[in-house]
Amino acid sequence: MSEASIGTLAVIGVGLIGGSLARALRAAGQVGRVIGCGRGRANLERAVELGVIDAWTHDPAEATREADMVFVAVPLGAVRPVFDAICSAIKPGTVVTDGGSAKASVVADFTAACPDHLARFVPGHPIAGTEQGGVEASFAELYRGRRVILTPTAASDPLALARVRAMWVACGAEVIEMDIVRHDEVLAATSHLPHMLAFGLVDALARMDEHDDIFRFAAGGFRDFTRIASSNPVMWRDICIANREALSRVMGDFVCEMEALATSIDVGDGERLLELFDRAKAARDAYVDGPGG
Amino acid sequence: MSEASIGTLAVIGVGLIGGSLARALRAAGQVGRVIGCGRGRANLERAVELGVIDAWTHDPAEATREADMVFVAVPLGAVRPVFDAICSAIKPGTVVTDGGSAKASVVADFTAACPDHLARFVPGHPIAGTEQGGVEASFAELYRGRRVILTPTAASDPLALARVRAMWVACGAEVIEMDIVRHDEVLAATSHLPHMLAFGLVDALARMDEHDDIFRFAAGGFRDFTRIASSNPVMWRDICIANREALSRVMGDFVCEMEALATSIDVGDGERLLELFDRAKAARDAYVDGPGG
Repeated sequence: MSEASIGTLAVIGVGLIGGSLARALRAAGQVGRVIGCGRGRANLERAVELGVIDAWTHDPAEATREADMVFVAVPLGAVRPVFDAICSAIKPGTVVTDGGSAKASVVADFTAACPDHLARFVPGHPIAGTEQGGVEASFAELYRGRRVILTPTAASDPLALARVRAMWVACGAEVIEMDIVRHDEVLAATSHLPHMLAFGLVDALARMDEHDDIFRFAAGGFRDFTRIASSNPVMWRDICIANREALSRVMGDFVCEMEALATSIDVGDGERLLELFDRAKAARDAYVDGPGG
Repeated sequence: MSEASIGTLAVIGVGLIGGSLARALRAAGQVGRVIGCGRGRANLERAVELGVIDAWTHDPAEATREADMVFVAVPLGAVRPVFDAICSAIKPGTVVTDGGSAKASVVADFTAACPDHLARFVPGHPIAGTEQGGVEASFAELYRGRRVILTPTAASDPLALARVRAMWVACGAEVIEMDIVRHDEVLAATSHLPHMLAFGLVDALARMDEHDDIFRFAAGGFRDFTRIASSNPVMWRDICIANREALSRVMGDFVCEMEALATSIDVGDGERLLELFDRAKAARDAYVDGPGG
């Protein structure tokens, strides 16, 4: 595991994702010093109190200058300014990775901001998180048994990739490599689309005149179903814009699925409805029984 | 509470809903004898072993003949045949109620099957349940603190209504009266639509060529989001057909909502996306903090 050992880790964006990485590496004894970087002074001071970071700065370049590993965990809309800021501070041997939920946009941002450091950049995405945010919500076990997708570019240095992989393994995660475009398609379907449905459903209900009544009669399933509608709005705005092509495509497909379903309901096609519900139940039960559950 | 006391309760359909009512009334000491009625012999014998019912029959009329209260808890597509069967067995003073998730269709079925007994019929809908079914899944606390909606018809006898209300209060439920059409609209939005989205999403993903991969990368939120897709397919086929008008309407509205959202994503309208996500998060958080949560 010594390969995972990181002298100084810079965490740009000390929230649930960045804070939990720092906590996990500390718990595993795989990091020496952690420098946190963010805009909110109170959150950074709290992170020091909690022992998540050792020091903090508002300046990404300052945090990067001392770092052996830089983890960027800010909303996707804030990634490009961070890359612009750290470019000149990346030392030879420093590895830069991130936790963004869409990868093509992050790679484009890094390529534009730091064209001379592509070999040191290893895009990543831990498939973990809760609807809670902030360093207060971070915990060392967040990544245990969860999958982390790495999407190295053609320019990524194999040694840099190995170091990022070892870092996540040290957190208890299962590391998978995936093509960038494929990642964005898979996540659009399994994560971004469900969030759009949850946000859209809650918003549609809230805008009904009688929405007090409406929510009053929502059953237990509704609570689970809409939990992800409590996720960070800024983060999701940025994900929508960063992954717009893939997300628009799956949303279009889903609208067609819903229109077909509505037709089956309109005409009372019980046979087709039962087929669909049986298929869905079987797939969902298999998912829960399987490793995904 | 003596008003709730039921000499003999007939439960037509001894599953999660019917079995839990019997268990709750027993636990409250509010029922003397429980006769179960269903098609599956094994399930009925198991219900006796579990002490949920005292005796069983495959014949709804036989169960009804001895009953002071008849609770019909079968899929909506099986309600009409049950009403046809019990009509001649309803004694003066016997009260008939049900647990169907759509009310207009149940009222139409009863009116057609038992026109002479309308005064004794009190349509009801406990807003409770899990994706698990069968008497094995039933438990006495299912209705504690949950809402039960009663939708009495113009013909419903006030004393019959009072007895059904008292029965649910004895189970720890909060009883609310609602107009039949309004019930079907509210439930279409808060329960039936979410189930369609969950079934539709899981089915859409399962039909993708790479669905093994797709589910493999589904995150934690996906599990909560799709839990209701594990619900009983036959029950939901029947709900779709029974409540088709209201459900088609809300599905049409939701498709429009999704199309507008897809447009905002396509054009990268971050402002509108943020507005929508903020509204939805606020409404969802208020729902969870409020009595609905």
